[in-house]
Amino acid sequence: MNGIKAKHSIVPAKTIERLVMYRILLDELQAQDKTHIFSNEMAQIAGNTPTQVRRDLMVVGYTGNSRNGYRVEDLLKAIRSLLDPPEGITMAIAGVGNLGRALLGYFALLQPRFRIVGAFDNDVHKVNRTIAGYRILPISAMTAELTRNPVQLGVITVPADQAQKVADAFLAAQVKGIVNFAAIPLRVTQGAWLENVHITSTLEKVAYFARMRQQGASL
Amino acid sequence: MNGIKAKHSIVPAKTIERLVMYRILLDELQAQDKTHIFSNEMAQIAGNTPTQVRRDLMVVGYTGNSRNGYRVEDLLKAIRSLLDPPEGITMAIAGVGNLGRALLGYFALLQPRFRIVGAFDNDVHKVNRTIAGYRILPISAMTAELTRNPVQLGVITVPADQAQKVADAFLAAQVKGIVNFAAIPLRVTQGAWLENVHITSTLEKVAYFARMRQQGASL
Repeated sequence: MNGIKAKHSIVPAKTIERLVMYRILLDELQAQDKTHIFSNEMAQIAGNTPTQVRRDLMVVGYTGNSRNGYRVEDLLKAIRSLLDPPEGITMAIAGVGNLGRALLGYFALLQPRFRIVGAFDNDVHKVNRTIAGYRILPISAMTAELTRNPVQLGVITVPADQAQKVADAFLAAQVKGIVNFAAIPLRVTQGAWLENVHITSTLEKVAYFARMRQQGASL
Repeated sequence: MNGIKAKHSIVPAKTIERLVMYRILLDELQAQDKTHIFSNEMAQIAGNTPTQVRRDLMVVGYTGNSRNGYRVEDLLKAIRSLLDPPEGITMAIAGVGNLGRALLGYFALLQPRFRIVGAFDNDVHKVNRTIAGYRILPISAMTAELTRNPVQLGVITVPADQAQKVADAFLAAQVKGIVNFAAIPLRVTQGAWLENVHITSTLEKVAYFARMRQQGASL
């Protein structure tokens, strides 16, 4: 463990998740013109303990704490310096069907924090068309394109049976982070980080348990 | 355990997740005009074992297995009878900002399997307008509205600081399933099922680890 820490300190996934959440909270506080917050307030909103909050904030090098609590502005600056690369989070999206198109429209509004560098699809009726402001390129050109214009994230929104092939094309272009919206498990190389987001599957699962509860089944 | 089984058999969440995945696979096989599949093929695509596949399919009452494998059509019918309520999955969505609007457009295309019964927002500029084909009602009217027209699912796409209040309004209307897209933890009563889907948080987390890997940090 010490060896890892000594070389380059990578923040654990759970801590990153909490920092992302704190940032969202702090952005909202700032929008409400609040300048300070106490660690116990943050903990309450975030659903954890003040000790956890303080430990997480030490990770971003923030230790300041006055009688008035943390300064929202300083905290935000510290968290952003860890989470926000100066060039924005660059991404490519493969698949502009129903979900891909919806996400493309959503991501386009998140600029400049997120930047879509390429949008790809196999459908000849979509290739070379402009959708949500992006010119669609063929998936067959993806690896070459992303080798020339590297991105941090590959977003997969193709049908499940094409998802592994698309993941392989991202990996071939040295994309190290993959977010898979296709409801199928993917294999990625050790050097890449994969997360799955399965929207309709989640809806179906929750709906099933909701119906069971409505029917008053024993849980 | 026997007591629970004897009363009403609720399928465990992990099994439901796999059944949802099998259904997606089977839908695609059917679109490719394939009529049969073996449990080991299904297992390979789904990333589990043939024994697991067979056990999962017994849950939906499907045991048939011929020399040619499972009949895709029969399997689909069995899985659908568990997952698809005849009335469709009815849902209400609270929050039609950037993400809510994108999801509303996406969900609208999933009819009749998913049916949006109500779309709500606090913004006076959105209330009473029609967005993605849905007339937007005020969140203040949500509990009353959903008590009159019950839904299985409440989808939360409001900003994080409003999410708990919206969840409470869903629960007050006896909504038993909540899908939370706001990147903040929510408290729900025991009688409800909550799942979180945090799209931008996931992107930020994966982007962080992707950058660490690009920089060749020790993992």
